[in-house]
Amino acid sequence: MTDLSAPPFSSRHIGPSEPDQQRMLEAVGFESVADLVAVAVPEAIRAKDKLKLPAAIGEAEAIAELRALAGRNRVLTSMIGLGYYDTVTPGVIRRNLLENPGWYTAYTPYQPEISQGRLEALLNFQTVVSDLTGLAVSGASLLDEGTAAAEAMTLARRAGKSKSDVFVVDADALPQTKAVLATRAEPLGITLVEHDLEGELPECFGLLVQYPGASGRLRDFRAVAAAAHEAGALVVAAADLLALTLVAAPGELGADIAIGSSQRFGVPFGFGGPHAAYMSVREGLQRQLPGRLVGVSVDADGDPAYRLALQTREQHIRREKATSNICTAQVLLAVIASMYAVYHGPEGLRGIAHRVHRHATALAEGLRGGGVEVVHGEFFDTVLARVPGRAAAVVAAAAERGVNLWRVDDDHVSVACDEKTGAAELAGVWAAFGVSAGLAPEDAPDALPDGLLRESPYLTHPVFHSHRSETAMLRYLRRLQDKDIALDRSMIPLGSCTMKLNATTEMEPITWPEFAAVHPYAPDDQAEGYRELIGTLEGWLAEVTGYDAVSIQPNAGSQGEFAGLLAIRAYHRANGQGERDVCLIPSSAHGTNAASAVMAGMRVVVVACDDDGNVDLADLDAKIEKHRDALSAIMVTYPSTHGVYEETITEVCAKVHDAGGQVYVDGANLNALVGLAKPGEFGADVSHLNLHKTFCIPHGGGGPGVGPVAVRAHLAAYLPGHPLHNGTPVGPVSAAPYGSAGILPISWAYVRMMGAEGLTAATEQAILSANYLARRLAPHYPVLYTGRGGLVAHECIVDLRQITKETGVTVDDVAKRLIDYGFHAPTMSFPVAGTLMIEPTESEDLNELDRFVDAMVAIRGEIAKVASGEYDKTDNPLRNAPHTAESVSADEWPHPYARSEAAYPLPSLRENKYWVPVRRIDQAYGDRNLVCSCPPLEAYED
Amino acid sequence: MTDLSAPPFSSRHIGPSEPDQQRMLEAVGFESVADLVAVAVPEAIRAKDKLKLPAAIGEAEAIAELRALAGRNRVLTSMIGLGYYDTVTPGVIRRNLLENPGWYTAYTPYQPEISQGRLEALLNFQTVVSDLTGLAVSGASLLDEGTAAAEAMTLARRAGKSKSDVFVVDADALPQTKAVLATRAEPLGITLVEHDLEGELPECFGLLVQYPGASGRLRDFRAVAAAAHEAGALVVAAADLLALTLVAAPGELGADIAIGSSQRFGVPFGFGGPHAAYMSVREGLQRQLPGRLVGVSVDADGDPAYRLALQTREQHIRREKATSNICTAQVLLAVIASMYAVYHGPEGLRGIAHRVHRHATALAEGLRGGGVEVVHGEFFDTVLARVPGRAAAVVAAAAERGVNLWRVDDDHVSVACDEKTGAAELAGVWAAFGVSAGLAPEDAPDALPDGLLRESPYLTHPVFHSHRSETAMLRYLRRLQDKDIALDRSMIPLGSCTMKLNATTEMEPITWPEFAAVHPYAPDDQAEGYRELIGTLEGWLAEVTGYDAVSIQPNAGSQGEFAGLLAIRAYHRANGQGERDVCLIPSSAHGTNAASAVMAGMRVVVVACDDDGNVDLADLDAKIEKHRDALSAIMVTYPSTHGVYEETITEVCAKVHDAGGQVYVDGANLNALVGLAKPGEFGADVSHLNLHKTFCIPHGGGGPGVGPVAVRAHLAAYLPGHPLHNGTPVGPVSAAPYGSAGILPISWAYVRMMGAEGLTAATEQAILSANYLARRLAPHYPVLYTGRGGLVAHECIVDLRQITKETGVTVDDVAKRLIDYGFHAPTMSFPVAGTLMIEPTESEDLNELDRFVDAMVAIRGEIAKVASGEYDKTDNPLRNAPHTAESVSADEWPHPYARSEAAYPLPSLRENKYWVPVRRIDQAYGDRNLVCSCPPLEAYED
Repeated sequence: MTDLSAPPFSSRHIGPSEPDQQRMLEAVGFESVADLVAVAVPEAIRAKDKLKLPAAIGEAEAIAELRALAGRNRVLTSMIGLGYYDTVTPGVIRRNLLENPGWYTAYTPYQPEISQGRLEALLNFQTVVSDLTGLAVSGASLLDEGTAAAEAMTLARRAGKSKSDVFVVDADALPQTKAVLATRAEPLGITLVEHDLEGELPECFGLLVQYPGASGRLRDFRAVAAAAHEAGALVVAAADLLALTLVAAPGELGADIAIGSSQRFGVPFGFGGPHAAYMSVREGLQRQLPGRLVGVSVDADGDPAYRLALQTREQHIRREKATSNICTAQVLLAVIASMYAVYHGPEGLRGIAHRVHRHATALAEGLRGGGVEVVHGEFFDTVLARVPGRAAAVVAAAAERGVNLWRVDDDHVSVACDEKTGAAELAGVWAAFGVSAGLAPEDAPDALPDGLLRESPYLTHPVFHSHRSETAMLRYLRRLQDKDIALDRSMIPLGSCTMKLNATTEMEPITWPEFAAVHPYAPDDQAEGYRELIGTLEGWLAEVTGYDAVSIQPNAGSQGEFAGLLAIRAYHRANGQGERDVCLIPSSAHGTNAASAVMAGMRVVVVACDDDGNVDLADLDAKIEKHRDALSAIMVTYPSTHGVYEETITEVCAKVHDAGGQVYVDGANLNALVGLAKPGEFGADVSHLNLHKTFCIPHGGGGPGVGPVAVRAHLAAYLPGHPLHNGTPVGPVSAAPYGSAGILPISWAYVRMMGAEGLTAATEQAILSANYLARRLAPHYPVLYTGRGGLVAHECIVDLRQITKETGVTVDDVAKRLIDYGFHAPTMSFPVAGTLMIEPTESEDLNELDRFVDAMVAIRGEIAKVASGEYDKTDNPLRNAPHTAESVSADEWPHPYARSEAAYPLPSLRENKYWVPVRRIDQAYGDRNLVCSCPPLEAYED
Repeated sequence: MTDLSAPPFSSRHIGPSEPDQQRMLEAVGFESVADLVAVAVPEAIRAKDKLKLPAAIGEAEAIAELRALAGRNRVLTSMIGLGYYDTVTPGVIRRNLLENPGWYTAYTPYQPEISQGRLEALLNFQTVVSDLTGLAVSGASLLDEGTAAAEAMTLARRAGKSKSDVFVVDADALPQTKAVLATRAEPLGITLVEHDLEGELPECFGLLVQYPGASGRLRDFRAVAAAAHEAGALVVAAADLLALTLVAAPGELGADIAIGSSQRFGVPFGFGGPHAAYMSVREGLQRQLPGRLVGVSVDADGDPAYRLALQTREQHIRREKATSNICTAQVLLAVIASMYAVYHGPEGLRGIAHRVHRHATALAEGLRGGGVEVVHGEFFDTVLARVPGRAAAVVAAAAERGVNLWRVDDDHVSVACDEKTGAAELAGVWAAFGVSAGLAPEDAPDALPDGLLRESPYLTHPVFHSHRSETAMLRYLRRLQDKDIALDRSMIPLGSCTMKLNATTEMEPITWPEFAAVHPYAPDDQAEGYRELIGTLEGWLAEVTGYDAVSIQPNAGSQGEFAGLLAIRAYHRANGQGERDVCLIPSSAHGTNAASAVMAGMRVVVVACDDDGNVDLADLDAKIEKHRDALSAIMVTYPSTHGVYEETITEVCAKVHDAGGQVYVDGANLNALVGLAKPGEFGADVSHLNLHKTFCIPHGGGGPGVGPVAVRAHLAAYLPGHPLHNGTPVGPVSAAPYGSAGILPISWAYVRMMGAEGLTAATEQAILSANYLARRLAPHYPVLYTGRGGLVAHECIVDLRQITKETGVTVDDVAKRLIDYGFHAPTMSFPVAGTLMIEPTESEDLNELDRFVDAMVAIRGEIAKVASGEYDKTDNPLRNAPHTAESVSADEWPHPYARSEAAYPLPSLRENKYWVPVRRIDQAYGDRNLVCSCPPLEAYED
């Protein structure tokens, strides 16, 4: 019998071919991958059985299965509203941005020189938000409107003068916002008070007003804002960006902070996400902003350049003093929203808003004409109708006509208009209400309060006026894309970030209408495909991690951590041990861990690490002893953030369990475990995973991410609740019931096509590739931290501290010099300052690994020249890196080294050269001179 | 009543905004577009009525209508075969090549320096074909297998020694190949003789053998090839590329020429096209190859560089001495096929072929086991079953099971296996035949003749072994793409080529399975959507051109011309005037015109042009008088190839008609007429259109194109026939019934979204933009040829002859220098040597037009410096252009001008610079040292 099987998908996902794998094994000194793994991975944690997953299928079969699942979602016209509105993603943006690996495979722009394209796009986003909300500074996106509201709440508490613990929430706020606020408020000791904002305001440190309200009602909140300010409270407006093109900006009405969603700027529903939320603040609060902020600075030649501003602030808030654990943003979605604004411009956006509004007013007129009571006279897009006892019947009648409305209660139905609403939709709605057709939108009156009409200009910057034809838009997208390094150009060897292949077959389904166009609150029978996909994926993730239950709701790793800790907290409380509030965290941990613990109402106690980077067991014992009765949990990363399989992990787990604590294993490094070891089996109680690391969701230039939380059975009851269901033991951590549901087909497809063998082979290759790099680099750079047999796990740390001491060449110099060689730098100075952490992943082939080694070795040679004095200490290719084409072709060449050394230090670069668009960026200058919206064109003049 | 209408699609398609249009009108000296058009376009040709087309709809609506049409195609599993086989387009190739404007908006690589990416891909294609067919030189693709066979036939006649007029066709050749050969043979006086290739061979100049045959039969044709050679005839093998991975190469069996389709290398059915055909020839015949040939040469720095080889040969065959009028190729599809081979490599292709073959043999075994007679014992993928009287029933039973088979006749059914065939398909087929399941493919025997097993290696070049992971493939595609200029980077101002927007919304439907996965011979009831779309589009094209009937079958402009002339010829014959065989062609005509006339059996008589570039009426009168009784037709381009609306066109038409001739208007310049004038109204009898010019089908880097033929009623009966229907007055000109049906949704969407007003506005803007450029450039370069009011039509010619005479700076220098400014050159030296013809199209916005003017003006300044002696006559930025990054950053700078002058002659280039990958290419070197497959890597070493 001949083997006729086609090569599996894993042979496309995994970079090295079998012969290349053999070559790599030889270099590392093993006969087989099994031998390597047997030494590298401690026996104590090895999984006993193979993963129980369905057999792998090919790409075409996976697409067929996904089409079948998609076919079980029914796409009706959504007029549900409640923070999610249908929108048209312009084709040119969908194809050339959302479906373009040049955009979606990029990493977070921590290396700003190779990220100028997406940084410009994010600056556009910030400008859109800042202009429309009338507030000075906007961040570069948050996870969703609900968590943005929660971040605004804690910001108000941090920044405000009031000593109150009360946060007032508009009774007309979105239900999911209320639910997420409740989840976040309680562990922090914040009391939420719901209020209609009409009568007297309770004492509070802050207040959130929904503008327009969930019921559609549009109110002038100047008075309540003034009252709040009088009482020392800060005012948060949750505002609809499209409405703001027609009505007064929150900043003009007295808001200190504005938050909201940019979803309706061209981002599909995706059954709830991912979408980019926004936050903007008035002058004076910018240093309190959670999440990322893009600012303008200058490069080494004095030219304007973009980069993340105030990063020291960001680092700070990700430590135990934090009240935000925000890390991932929603870059890809923010960029889409920004491009939607660039393409339409202010007139276009205003035109869309005007059409939406007139359809809503025509709808209301028609209802009134048919004898239906319309509750609010002033609204933007949403009409609340009173139909005593008939709400369910009206909603059902509309569904029969292909339109989803929202049943507010037995007596009320709300109907939201959006960019896609047209005459047919209005006719369907009227028919569902049993009224005859009303006015044409062209003849309908406005229903905006007179005093709220927008008078201030917005989007006046030329970028919002220059790309109006499709050709111009296409070229703008291409030009920005070309400035950046993403996975479509070279490897991105970022330790702890797992920049692996985001396969096309995994990506394709997310823009199919059957997945993209489903509202998160669509009736269950319209989302059967989604629910099956989600259930299956949760089951697979449980199998892979050895846990009993998984929730994919958390839409970032940070939210997964928070959810995991909430589960631990709720478990202790349910056991009458609510006093357990100490969270042990090793000193090597990612800053987010501590921030999450604080958010979950825990006290952080740091456990020391020994010289090998492992948890110091003696110190652990001491800390456990000291906090035995208060011990809630330990949070460890496995393999450790040093990229090592700690031998003692099972011991650590046992010690904590013995003291009544729970074990949280951070799943950031799960790529070193899948198929080989399961945290749920080797001692952990809860983990979060990063689907945007191990499970192939692309990084999108800094988001979206998905951070499912996985727990053992005793914690299953404490997973995040549904935002619309009251009374769950733990509330929701994200605004949408299934978080970023729209991108889950990616991970589903990955597991489905890899199967147990493929997933395990990927892990094995990731370990082999990391050890290959470590072995090849070791003669040139000291490799810090290794485990048994001198092996690393899936990443390795090279130590530059001695080199820096001897030569003055820093990790920064090496990182920037790698750009000249065409590479994104490894992770810098994490977890140890002065080092580079390199994670190749299984997806890079041997050719690319060798190309990276060649670059690192060549750089080591350059460092040696600095050491020997052949290169000047300060004027050398390392310190001056990166070199732009402009700099190496300048008429004057002022440097003591040759142009060719700057530009083409390796011959292969002459065949394939990435030209960085700016030189090294001055971080401090930008922070001293903070500019966070589009600079005027004069800034670019020489 | 407020206007709530959304901006129409035309506002995205047309580049300049209304205010910019006003600015342009001012520059040209008109108040309104209507005023401009009134002067520019002769009253005599102006259409009396507005176009009667459905009202324009928006992009979302167009997608919805196309989805509805797509939904009326039913996609069954196709096992029809007959030259079209289902195949898997790897996702990474579909998304990053077929759906990527960086690839599909590129132009034909006539400017090789900015085309190195696609030239490398085409060289890979040639290597695949040359390796697999075992012949020395392959061309860079032809239109389809049928026309490739016809080209091979005429090549054999040109190159062979035999005086015979007979061409022998394998009785087992594909039916569409036979039909196209018949259409092409007759006007050239070639007699086709069908023969089973078993008995004695008739005297002939050539012979075509299908390998394997249409019936699936696989035969060793060594003997008949030897006999043919003995008789001085050339042997053409029509071979299946996938089969050739398992069986002996045609070249090894004695073929002089191989042709065939590369469709099954990853290119979807598309209801018949577009797909890339191939042709390869043995050593000695390469200068006879029709179509394009990519070769390796060197650039000014001596580095290897690709370019089209033997172009003088190509120019030659496009004149009246031609026997081929091939012009457009199928570059995009050839590139897909080449990447499929790059991605799978030789082992992968062999594995696919092996699976296909074993499924076929298992199928045959199962049929035999069930008592069904299998006609041929030796085959690759196609099984011919004899089922007396039952063929229709079997085919119907299979269709009920979701599988299309082919009913050969009442008693025979053929079943073709392909890459997608699996157990389910075999089970369905067996059930349809009423037999129980047979062997598993793994257990089935081979059915390849022993003497035919492939032993020679293929695809040994490293490029076929280096991109096996998806990541590596993605990066290879990106790297090649980045070398080239396409419309996603800058305007491509090619006169006569109409490089306008290819909108995403137009492009999206072509990769939907409902359009992509339909076999051209699928039963009618499975292609209702296609047939409606095609019928509608033909109707719209008739309305736009003023003709009565349109056929979209011709899959290139050249085929449309040929079809149009065949219609004229058939018409004269039907009227008893078969002696009319003179075709008048103005001296300014495109070379293809003459070549087409020769192919249609006509004698070409050239009519002179006057100094203004118009047809010389006196000479026309003289030529008509001389050939009055033999006058068949005149072929004119309108507006003329000089870009001018000739005032005399109606007079020309009348004179020819008076003499009994027909008028052919070449539609190449239709972009200057749509909505303003209709050739069918102002005097022409027949035209071909170029959907890849006026109707938005992208150029794909040199194809696909679509060249519909449009005729007045008296010629309608003589439009091309269906390849499977015998006895039509004129046979088919393309292999597939509807030509390149798969890309017709593009033009459909364009017309549907533009409507009459949008199309007319586009034409008006195209005229305005051309006149704007002419006016802006006129102070710097003489503008050759203008019509009334000193206006041009939709393009303008700038004359460099005097400049060249005075300064030595040539059109070539200007064209190459434009690359340094980031532009693709305009059309060079056509229709007048020493000039540049510039066509901006309506899609370029004012910003881009001004950027182009700035570049041209700056270049004029550089020329002035040459004239003044400030620049050296030979060592100046013009002569040395283009400048690579490597050259301007070299350690030594040997030129008397500054590096910054070379690299950044305008400040705006510092923000947005295209770096050309090679310097100016030495055309002659490459022709002297012809290398047309992938060079060894050593060629790239310094």
